[in-house]
Amino acid sequence: MFNLHPQLDKDCILIGQFKLCQLLLMNDANYPWFILVPARENISEIYQLSDEGQQQLLSESTYLSRKLMQVFSGDKMNIAALGNVVPQLHVHHVVRYKTDSTWPAPVWGKLAAIEYDELQLNEIMKKLQVLKDGGFMFLEDQSKSS
Amino acid sequence: MFNLHPQLDKDCILIGQFKLCQLLLMNDANYPWFILVPARENISEIYQLSDEGQQQLLSESTYLSRKLMQVFSGDKMNIAALGNVVPQLHVHHVVRYKTDSTWPAPVWGKLAAIEYDELQLNEIMKKLQVLKDGGFMFLEDQSKSS
Repeated sequence: MFNLHPQLDKDCILIGQFKLCQLLLMNDANYPWFILVPARENISEIYQLSDEGQQQLLSESTYLSRKLMQVFSGDKMNIAALGNVVPQLHVHHVVRYKTDSTWPAPVWGKLAAIEYDELQLNEIMKKLQVLKDGGFMFLEDQSKSS
Repeated sequence: MFNLHPQLDKDCILIGQFKLCQLLLMNDANYPWFILVPARENISEIYQLSDEGQQQLLSESTYLSRKLMQVFSGDKMNIAALGNVVPQLHVHHVVRYKTDSTWPAPVWGKLAAIEYDELQLNEIMKKLQVLKDGGFMFLEDQSKSS
């Protein structure tokens, strides 16, 4: 049984699940900002995952990065495992643009989050359909099949 | 032939070389701050490395993280591949303490760098000897053997 940290649950929208990780969308329209959370309890550092878990995280992170850069036409992918505030291991994947308001600074602590509206969320969900060829299961499909 | 980006060369001290990555120490006594740079030309994203290169980067990053947390007795490892300013792929590994001046914020853009003095550098080099069992070659040993 895996429970998402309450802070991640509050700040993010659950999109679905890879083999190892839950995929979250940060509810912040300033950037296309996604988070991978390995569905393992009591892990706060990458090296605390099993060797297999580390490989799987790498594989999902690489796949996600490549797809996000394609569908959002980003200039740079920013990947980070920080966890100073939320100890549950989570890996940020932020698509950056040379034209975004914070460039070239990292995104943390810069802008107040702007919540997505329904239209924007639909647009993002449409873009994310590209993940379907990588063993990714969307939350809505999980609900249907259970 | 691999050339380190001039900005990394300016800000950091080259410690040595894993199989894939150069290990740099950020010349900033505010935090134990290390950087892995895959010695491959024209790579700016992790997914641009070969599958083998990605695996090797993961392996070196995990090994380094675990050892740094041990010898520096850190509270949290912060790992990040950003590259908005320096496009050459480089992965930050920062040992964080709940008592450091920036905690819990990420380190980028917070404090002016404080250059290490020779005594401090010697202390760090002593701690880093623990890397010798992981296929790491120190710069000074490389010079001796060539």
